[in-house]
Amino acid sequence: MNLTRPALHTSLSPALLHLYNVSNSIVVIIDVLRATSTIATVLYNGAKCIIPVDSVAECIRIGKQIEGITAGERDGRVAEGLSYGNSPFEYPREFVKGKTLVLTTTNGTKLLHMALDKGAKKIITGSFPNLTSVCNYLIEQKLPVILGCAAWNDKVNIEDALFAGAVINRIKEHFTINCDASQLAETMYIDAKESPYEFLKAKNASHYNRLSGFGLEKDIRYCLTEDVADVLCVYEGGKLIISQSHN
Amino acid sequence: MNLTRPALHTSLSPALLHLYNVSNSIVVIIDVLRATSTIATVLYNGAKCIIPVDSVAECIRIGKQIEGITAGERDGRVAEGLSYGNSPFEYPREFVKGKTLVLTTTNGTKLLHMALDKGAKKIITGSFPNLTSVCNYLIEQKLPVILGCAAWNDKVNIEDALFAGAVINRIKEHFTINCDASQLAETMYIDAKESPYEFLKAKNASHYNRLSGFGLEKDIRYCLTEDVADVLCVYEGGKLIISQSHN
Repeated sequence: MNLTRPALHTSLSPALLHLYNVSNSIVVIIDVLRATSTIATVLYNGAKCIIPVDSVAECIRIGKQIEGITAGERDGRVAEGLSYGNSPFEYPREFVKGKTLVLTTTNGTKLLHMALDKGAKKIITGSFPNLTSVCNYLIEQKLPVILGCAAWNDKVNIEDALFAGAVINRIKEHFTINCDASQLAETMYIDAKESPYEFLKAKNASHYNRLSGFGLEKDIRYCLTEDVADVLCVYEGGKLIISQSHN
Repeated sequence: MNLTRPALHTSLSPALLHLYNVSNSIVVIIDVLRATSTIATVLYNGAKCIIPVDSVAECIRIGKQIEGITAGERDGRVAEGLSYGNSPFEYPREFVKGKTLVLTTTNGTKLLHMALDKGAKKIITGSFPNLTSVCNYLIEQKLPVILGCAAWNDKVNIEDALFAGAVINRIKEHFTINCDASQLAETMYIDAKESPYEFLKAKNASHYNRLSGFGLEKDIRYCLTEDVADVLCVYEGGKLIISQSHN
């Protein structure tokens, strides 16, 4: 056993993030349905950057200031006053190439700012669409990792835990994992990996129900598909950008 | 579908309990290794009652006052100043029959007092040794249920989630479950149920490691055994007692 392997932990809810040593870690923000999947897609499709903000008001203010695309959701729908929502399909290459998106989402951007406030060493976003980039980066950095699930209003959700489990399943040999939440996430992922979509449906996952109630099955299927927007999204200087050195 | 089925939720950590509607619910306090397993055993072996207290100092004070047995642990060992620890094997019938135990544990009694402060309708304790009594009671009461995992210093643990999963697996037809944490717990339980002991070991469960490091495999195996102390333990008037109407 290599005793120098860095630690990996999974925080299943933002309300548990304070239990982990954020300040010496890479924090992976995970909001599978749909913020971090959309972030990967927007950057993959050539946007210049994404500015994640906490509130709709700030989104509008900054959007005007920089002439960016204002985007975001509250409770699964386009937030009032913003131009676009949180669906990856709203952001094809011909629309977003070279542009700046100002984004606010219910849970994902909140967690990102928590990680920032707690002094995370590095912050990246993770989703099935950019799974391989996330895994390669975490292996390469040789730093402690916190897989931070955005959850839903602090309630643990299946899809974010599933993604944490997918990452763990791929990179665990490179880390020291003394973390029951990580084991729980990986155990569930192993059960689900043949078809995460069918798994969410069968398990009556709360956000699956919420989004499919809005007719968003296509979004859900996309957000559970590996490596369809496989770029590394890092948070630097107030913006999410593609890390040039890793793509 | 019977629309009158009450809701069931699982709180995977005391730090998540505030997310649920405690005041209209039965809260099941779950601290598998070892508080709630020991509570079931002590009452099954004929103790008059158990007084759960928050601190070692209060345990000593009340113990003296009522000439009870002072018992408790901090971080898996007998707490300094107390006579007994948190192992079910310390409390055979010939020792505890008719006596009162004053008990303080790291996580279990803390969660119990949280549930009390939040005005839980009823509080019971749950563990594999009294699984059937817990399930029968929950079905019969027809009230909303919160399965409250005591966890470890607020960090989610495998064994408490496993017990929540075991309860859900048995009683889910009687409840409405829109709760991803419950699905997570049950999914893990289904994987583990052939041998929860081997599962904890294979998953490198943190508290399994802590206790087996103290040579307590026998305790762990006992605490994962169903219905070996199958009484219903309810919290009433500051004490844990066997509910006469349910045993």
